[in-house]
Order: sequence, then structure tokens, then C-alpha cells
Amino acid sequence: MKISRIGKEIPPFIVMDVLERAQELERQGENIIHLEVGEPDFETPKCIRERATEALRKGITHYTHSLGAYNLRCEIAEYYNEEYELRSKVKPENVIVTSGTSPALPLIFGAILDRDDEVILSNPHYPCYPNMIKFVGGKPRFVFVREEEGFQLNPEDVKEAITKKTKAILINSPANPTGNLLSPEWMEEIASFGIPVISDEIYHGLVYKGEAKSILEFAEKDRELIALNGFSKFFAMTGWRLGYIIAPQDLIRPIQKMIQNLFISPNAFVQEAAISALSECEEETEKMRRIYDERRRFMIKRLREIGFGITVEPTGAFYVFANAKRFANDSYKFAFDILEKAKVGVAPGIDFGSGGEGYIRFSYANSLDNITEGLARIERFLAN
Amino acid sequence: MKISRIGKEIPPFIVMDVLERAQELERQGENIIHLEVGEPDFETPKCIRERATEALRKGITHYTHSLGAYNLRCEIAEYYNEEYELRSKVKPENVIVTSGTSPALPLIFGAILDRDDEVILSNPHYPCYPNMIKFVGGKPRFVFVREEEGFQLNPEDVKEAITKKTKAILINSPANPTGNLLSPEWMEEIASFGIPVISDEIYHGLVYKGEAKSILEFAEKDRELIALNGFSKFFAMTGWRLGYIIAPQDLIRPIQKMIQNLFISPNAFVQEAAISALSECEEETEKMRRIYDERRRFMIKRLREIGFGITVEPTGAFYVFANAKRFANDSYKFAFDILEKAKVGVAPGIDFGSGGEGYIRFSYANSLDNITEGLARIERFLAN
Repeated sequence: MKISRIGKEIPPFIVMDVLERAQELERQGENIIHLEVGEPDFETPKCIRERATEALRKGITHYTHSLGAYNLRCEIAEYYNEEYELRSKVKPENVIVTSGTSPALPLIFGAILDRDDEVILSNPHYPCYPNMIKFVGGKPRFVFVREEEGFQLNPEDVKEAITKKTKAILINSPANPTGNLLSPEWMEEIASFGIPVISDEIYHGLVYKGEAKSILEFAEKDRELIALNGFSKFFAMTGWRLGYIIAPQDLIRPIQKMIQNLFISPNAFVQEAAISALSECEEETEKMRRIYDERRRFMIKRLREIGFGITVEPTGAFYVFANAKRFANDSYKFAFDILEKAKVGVAPGIDFGSGGEGYIRFSYANSLDNITEGLARIERFLAN
Repeated sequence: MKISRIGKEIPPFIVMDVLERAQELERQGENIIHLEVGEPDFETPKCIRERATEALRKGITHYTHSLGAYNLRCEIAEYYNEEYELRSKVKPENVIVTSGTSPALPLIFGAILDRDDEVILSNPHYPCYPNMIKFVGGKPRFVFVREEEGFQLNPEDVKEAITKKTKAILINSPANPTGNLLSPEWMEEIASFGIPVISDEIYHGLVYKGEAKSILEFAEKDRELIALNGFSKFFAMTGWRLGYIIAPQDLIRPIQKMIQNLFISPNAFVQEAAISALSECEEETEKMRRIYDERRRFMIKRLREIGFGITVEPTGAFYVFANAKRFANDSYKFAFDILEKAKVGVAPGIDFGSGGEGYIRFSYANSLDNITEGLARIERFLAN
């Protein structure tokens, strides 16, 4: 079959290759510790699952409005207004519910990018970002970030990267793969450049020190700010596939038309369950957050003992992005060595862009016991 | 906000405009009969809902494999092999599970179309098809179809439309909006042109006379055939958002990479429930099919009595595409007249392409009582 250029060139997730090789080893009887995955190890809180069950019983199994069920859009608006200092600025009419947070980004890019238009983003970055931009014909423009600045987008560097073709700046705080936060001051400065800012806030709530601001808190006249969020990470709902966009009014209709054509609507009873997530499970999410934090502190301490470099302690998401240059410069080879010889899955820094080379991403979305054992294995492997 | 060309130009579903106006009238206290919607009025069969509930209880709430859960892919392969004369040719490795049937098509187009590559399809057609093609940079190339041939793609016309840029022929049988089947002979001929054929089989199962062949039944060496299907229509699962692709092996990896980047995976417990749909609810689907058929026969008879033209009786899906040229040439205006004055929602033919002008699509995904009342209202309206 003749495959398109994009079909040939779009890269896979390397971390998926690690995971698949790990599963192959497991089928051969090996015991593998998984520190490569970007997915909560917790089950979805019970009240959310029960709400979905109730919705199924009631027969909420039909298409919803293409922008999402109105009661959920109201709930999301209220959640954002309460969670951040937004003084009721978010209206249900600004909210678009999507079938996962991932497909929301290509929708936004599709609505604002013409061919060869540029989006500024950090390097390293979540691996899919540039591929989403290219999928709709746009071009990623990378800004290298510095380990000593916690890998976060420096507004000075962003400013220099702006061209006539720049249609948006993409930020992500807490960030994947680094687990770091963007300071409110830098966020504000980035919001002031007169370029639309798209803020991927999927790791919000998973913050252990400091505060993750929503980009919407920096709203001012003429600023075009878009927040992107979802239920996967904070509510442990990865397998449910539900996300949302909060956008200025003039972006709603173009995205709605794309949804009508490409998606129709998100899952009906999952939307119903999401209402419970936002309103009924603070206790469960706080419990998960405390457990993540305990693992985070342990992992940082142990990785440093083993000899990995962590300049700025990550305080968000569930990742530690550790400097491994002391051990190896080829992170791809190093990650597979760790898998094959120490039987621990880790994500190679190169998966997140050239700026991630020489680093390894460790996920603490695994139990303290497993993290303890996994890091002990890596320590023994490196000692040999 | 500066909106992209595609964001500005992508058309909405006109039938959605009809539906939204209808809902506005309902809020004003009017009683509206809905014959415009393309969605089963039935609830999802109980055994499917129970399987989802069970999966939620078990905690099947995490990401699955990007191609879909392997047990579901096995079940889909088996279902196709049994449902059609495929002699076990479909392997689980040929199956890709997607978050609805709608997003599956842009994935296929993305994997095979470079800029300005063409896809041949009928006019009239499902309104979203050309927009999906354009979304990934391709060009739809329309072949007009004839009322007296049941609006189906004539292979002679398809042959003439083939250019050096043609990368695929898109067929849809039973078809939306016409409810007609493509004859096995014409299907076979279209499959023999040496051009990949994408067959949207979403209305399979909803067939009341004759037989809907899968394109995969015409497989031969060097033929590149792709089937597209899902759970929405036949199993009354529109709100669940689950579909699938059955494709040649060399198309799987390019689409998988796109899914990893743009979707990650489909909903985990919905996939579990889909196994029940394929294996446990034949009785329920057969009951729905019989009810649709009764409505179909009634609707055809009544529409003819009222004066609409139906040359070839539709025998699939849940639509009657009726010639309304005796009453009006502007189907958009006519549909809104029927809504405002007769209080019945119908879909204007123009929504399905220029070849649909002068026609009205009536859906029988509504109760016999409502269909009776709706058509009586239209009869009275036209008599005045």
C-alpha cells in the first residue's frame, strides 16, 4: 500500500517501544519494574465509576451536543472559576468537551494553523506535540530549555523565537517529561507577547510544592489564551478518554464544526461520570496526591544517591527527569540497557526531543515498593 | 482570534442546524417530531450495558494497547470472518480499534493521502466525508449518482473519474443519505480498478432486503481493500464512541503511530462491552432490525401517497431519500419550512452535496407513532 509522507514520517512513542519490549520480557518469565509509564497506577475513584454505572442504567447512551453535555460544561466552568482566581470569567459557552485531551490539541491547531504556520514549544517536550502540529500542516519551533532553570520556557528565548509565522506558544506546567512548574512571572510574561498561548494543564492538581497557575489567570483585553485539560491524570481516568478546552468565544465555532465532522460528540455516560469527578471526589484525589508526593521525595533522594543529576527538584506531575550524562550519552541505548540488564523500564530522554538527550525520565506512578526495588536494581547494574 | 482557512471554511452539518432550531422551538413549547436524526432511538441492549458496568467494577479503566485490546481485536476478526465469506482471512493483526467510526476515516486518509491527492466518492454522500479528506490536505472527487440507479456508484463513472492523483475510492453501502445498497457486481468491479477501496460498512446489519457485502469479500492478490465499521448504528451505541478499521498489514503501523500521537488508545471498558455486543446480543439486534423494517415499509408507502418520489426502494440503514422536486427545488428552504410550519424535523438533500438538491432525507429511527404523526403533519402542510 502506498503510504503518505506523514504516515511514513510520523514517529512512534519510543516509550511504547520500551513498554512493548518490557512486556515481551515478561512473557518470557522475567520480572520487570515499570518506571517508564505516564499513567496513574491507581484505579479510578469509586464514586466516578458508580456515576458511570448509574448513567448506563438510565440509558445515557446517545450522542450528546457536539460541544459536550451542557451540565458538564457548566460544571467545568465552575470548577475552573473556583480552582483558580478567575472571578467567574469562564462561561459554559467557552468550554468544549473532547474525547480525551490528546485529540483536543490537533483540533485547536487545526483551527488556528495554516500551512507552515509555527507553534513555539520547549525542547524537551511531550513527544506528541510536534507530531500533532505537523499533522495539520504546521511547524513546531523549538526553544531549548536549561536544566538549571528547571527546563522551563524562558520568556527571553521565546521572544527571540517569534516570527511572522508564529501563531501560538504552547506551554505545559507541570511539564512532561520534567515534572517542573513554570513560574507565574514567566507565564505572565509569555502571555503578554501578543501571541495566543495554549496551556496544557493536564497535570494540574498533581502539584506538591508551589502553585500551578492556569493561563486563564493572566487574561487581559486582547490576550488570546487557551487552556487544555482533562480527567486522565489527576482523576486517574486515562482509559476513559475525556478532556476539555477552555477557549475564547471566536474559537468555539471553528472547533465545533471540526468536531461535528471528525468526532460527532464525546462519550455520553463518561461525560456524566466526569461531573462526579469534578464535584465529589476531593478526598480520593487528595489521597492520591499525598501518595505521589511521598514517592516523589523518595525517588529524588535515591536517584541522587545513585549518582543521577537533579538540579531543580521536580514538584509536579509524576516524573523525575534525571541527568544521566555521567553514565551514558546515548539515552536510547542506556534505557534499553537498563531494561535488558536491570529489568527496569525507563523512558529515554531523546524520546522528548534532542534537548532531552543524556537524560532519563523516571515515573513515580508506581508503588513505593516497586520504586524501591527498581532503583535498587539500577544501582546494582550501574555498580558493575 | 485569527482562524485558519480550514477553521473558517469547514462546513457544519446542516442537519445539526435543523436539530438546533427544532430544539429552540421545543423550548418555546412546540411539539416537534424528529425525522432528521441519524441515530437509533433504541437504548443500547442491556447485556452490553451490563458488561460495561462489570468492567468498571473490575477497574478496567486504564489505557489499552494503541491498536485496541487484543481480545476485542480477536472478536472483531472472528465476527467479520463469520458474518461474511472470508474463510478466516481477517486476523486480529489487521484490526485497529478507534474512538468512534468518525475519527477512523481521517486516520486512514492521513495515512494514504499526500497534499492534493484525490479520493473518489459519490454525490450525494455523508456530509462529513469531503471535510475529513480536506482536513488532511486531500481533495474529494465527486461522482454524481442517479436516482434511477438507487443513487449508487456506477463503476463506469468511477473509472472515468480516476486520475494520477487518485489514492482511494470511498464506498458506503447501505448508504447515508439514500438507504440503498451497492450491488455485489458493481462492488466487485470497483474493487478491480487497482485503486485502494475504503468501504464504510457502518450500516451493515441494518439490511431489510438483499445482502450487504463487505468489501473484504472481494479480496484478491494486489487488491488493497479497507473496511470501516463500528458499534453505533447496528448495536445502538452512538454515545459510546467505538469503531474499527480492518486494513492490509502495511497500513497498520502508520495508523498506529498516528493513534499513539493523536489518541493514545480507545476507552478501555467500552472495548470490553463491545465484546458482548459482537457475541451476545443477536436477539436484541434482530428485534431492532425487524422494527426498523416495519417502519421503513410504512414510511415508503406514506411518502409515496403524499407525493414524494421514491424510484428505488431503500432497503438498508434507516433513511428514505425522497424526491421533493414536485414541491420545491430549494431543499434547505423546504426543510426549514416543514420544520417551522409542519413542526417536523427533516434533513435537506443539499446537506449531502449538490447531487442531493431537490431531495429530503427522512429518518425512520423514530417510533411508528411518531412517524405516522410526522408524515400526517407534512401531508396537511403540503395540502395547504
